[in-house]
Amino acid sequence: MDEFDLIAAHFAPLADPQAALDLLDDAAYLQGPGDLVITADALVEGVHFLPTDPLETVARKLARVNFSDLIAKGAEPIGALLTLAWPKRRPTAQIADFARGLALEQSNGLTLLGGDTVSTPGPLTISLTMLGSPCAGGPVLRAGARPGDLVCVTGVIGDGYLGLNVATGEAMPLDATWLADLLDAYRVPRPPFGFAPALAAHASAALDVSDGLIADAGRLAKRSGVALTIEAERVPLSAAARAWRSAADDPVQALGALVTGGDDYQTLFTIAPDRLDGLRAAARGIAVSVIGRAEAGSGVRLVDSTGAILAAARQGWSHF
Amino acid sequence: MDEFDLIAAHFAPLADPQAALDLLDDAAYLQGPGDLVITADALVEGVHFLPTDPLETVARKLARVNFSDLIAKGAEPIGALLTLAWPKRRPTAQIADFARGLALEQSNGLTLLGGDTVSTPGPLTISLTMLGSPCAGGPVLRAGARPGDLVCVTGVIGDGYLGLNVATGEAMPLDATWLADLLDAYRVPRPPFGFAPALAAHASAALDVSDGLIADAGRLAKRSGVALTIEAERVPLSAAARAWRSAADDPVQALGALVTGGDDYQTLFTIAPDRLDGLRAAARGIAVSVIGRAEAGSGVRLVDSTGAILAAARQGWSHF
Repeated sequence: MDEFDLIAAHFAPLADPQAALDLLDDAAYLQGPGDLVITADALVEGVHFLPTDPLETVARKLARVNFSDLIAKGAEPIGALLTLAWPKRRPTAQIADFARGLALEQSNGLTLLGGDTVSTPGPLTISLTMLGSPCAGGPVLRAGARPGDLVCVTGVIGDGYLGLNVATGEAMPLDATWLADLLDAYRVPRPPFGFAPALAAHASAALDVSDGLIADAGRLAKRSGVALTIEAERVPLSAAARAWRSAADDPVQALGALVTGGDDYQTLFTIAPDRLDGLRAAARGIAVSVIGRAEAGSGVRLVDSTGAILAAARQGWSHF
Repeated sequence: MDEFDLIAAHFAPLADPQAALDLLDDAAYLQGPGDLVITADALVEGVHFLPTDPLETVARKLARVNFSDLIAKGAEPIGALLTLAWPKRRPTAQIADFARGLALEQSNGLTLLGGDTVSTPGPLTISLTMLGSPCAGGPVLRAGARPGDLVCVTGVIGDGYLGLNVATGEAMPLDATWLADLLDAYRVPRPPFGFAPALAAHASAALDVSDGLIADAGRLAKRSGVALTIEAERVPLSAAARAWRSAADDPVQALGALVTGGDDYQTLFTIAPDRLDGLRAAARGIAVSVIGRAEAGSGVRLVDSTGAILAAARQGWSHF
């Protein structure tokens, strides 16, 4: 068995037998899928994951960064095409690790429709094109926020950034349990699975937070033609992130790192105030924090509880 | 402008403004596309194209290897998602070359729906996921050939293989015009554009010839559960390929190289004999050669005009 046979053997059980034609033809055939939301994300070894990251978690991250995009558009997954450029020097036994990671995402809706496997003299390079169905009321776009809307985010912000620091061996004054959890949050992102129907039914605009809360808020603000004001103290942090921030020499600067660090894969959205209760009811326990408000204007401002713009923000965190 | 801004500037004109949401959101939104045929192909610098190949032709090749898959399934393109891992060391001016190549494929139906652009410390790695609509009677699968069907192929076989030899500086006793044309055939494959409706209406099974006529015929035979016999002298060759073969020390071995070399991107198909005239009428001048016949059994045999299996084939060209 060469590596391509191995891949076929490992990936076939992940495929939709009908649409993927058993992965034994040249294309997938999807009958009457209805409206589609389609996203593509690529990960490169040494850029988006570390050469030391287990391939099981790399595969899960690939699936989850795409799930994150679909969720934030208010769509649920139909299936995905995988392109895999496999380094000649990587032991083929690792293909089983990669496939096991994908298999763990089947319960979140990962189904393979097809793809392409090639070899590369360079780093492991993987991309997934994921097709989804918009939920009722969706898709939710970056455009659509209106002055007066609330700004909200799911889950917690900053754990992905802190987890990257753990992965790269940064010294961090936290206990081992927290360090392990942060590392896991970096390697296997935690998008708000199941949130798409609530978002599609109630939100006015949304996107997923991948490049940092502030940068991505800026994109939503620009595309919607509004200003977003975010209250620093309302940004949801995990207990580990709160402890890390408290221990920092400059807590404001530390908060800046958390809100610009990226790798969060939460959904940032805007919503009319009178729709919030309905969204929360539909979200069935998924954590949703109100962190600010949309106003007439442009750009993103990070303010303290008195409304004063935080000094560090004024000095220009990236993408403000 | 960083490389990502440059890419956005160059790629935006290639996008479907409505479905791609101006490439300014996180996903594409395709309303009611109907049945879909979906294919994905990846190309890696140093593996699928040479570092010296102009990026304009690399982009065209990426589009055309995907077009080739859609055509061979009897489908016409709707749109595509591009993932581009751009080497840090490549001059960003080359992005314009790459985009120009994609633009030249717009007349063949290339429309961008979205994608992802990342940087890589490794070789240029590009993949395209292309969505298509099956034509009436399609899609055409690898399975479906029946004993008694004719085996046919579009265009000519072997020019891609000879063009690769030109690109790598192999000495070839051919005049300069032919050498230039073969190089072009390797760099910018020539799938049978416009053939999908005729194929979908009339063929019993099909796939595109990318890994060599014999290897791909073997895949169709296996999936259809038939044997394919191909007459060597009926395999269509260009004038350049015929001249190259005549000048070879061992013409049978030379033919073997042409039918196993790959990079043809023609459509190989089977068809009931009484459908051939209808297909040819619908194909409107696209060259279609009858090269053999499907029979009960398995595998692929390459025979001479007397029906004897060619010695070189018996000794085992790859994938027989």
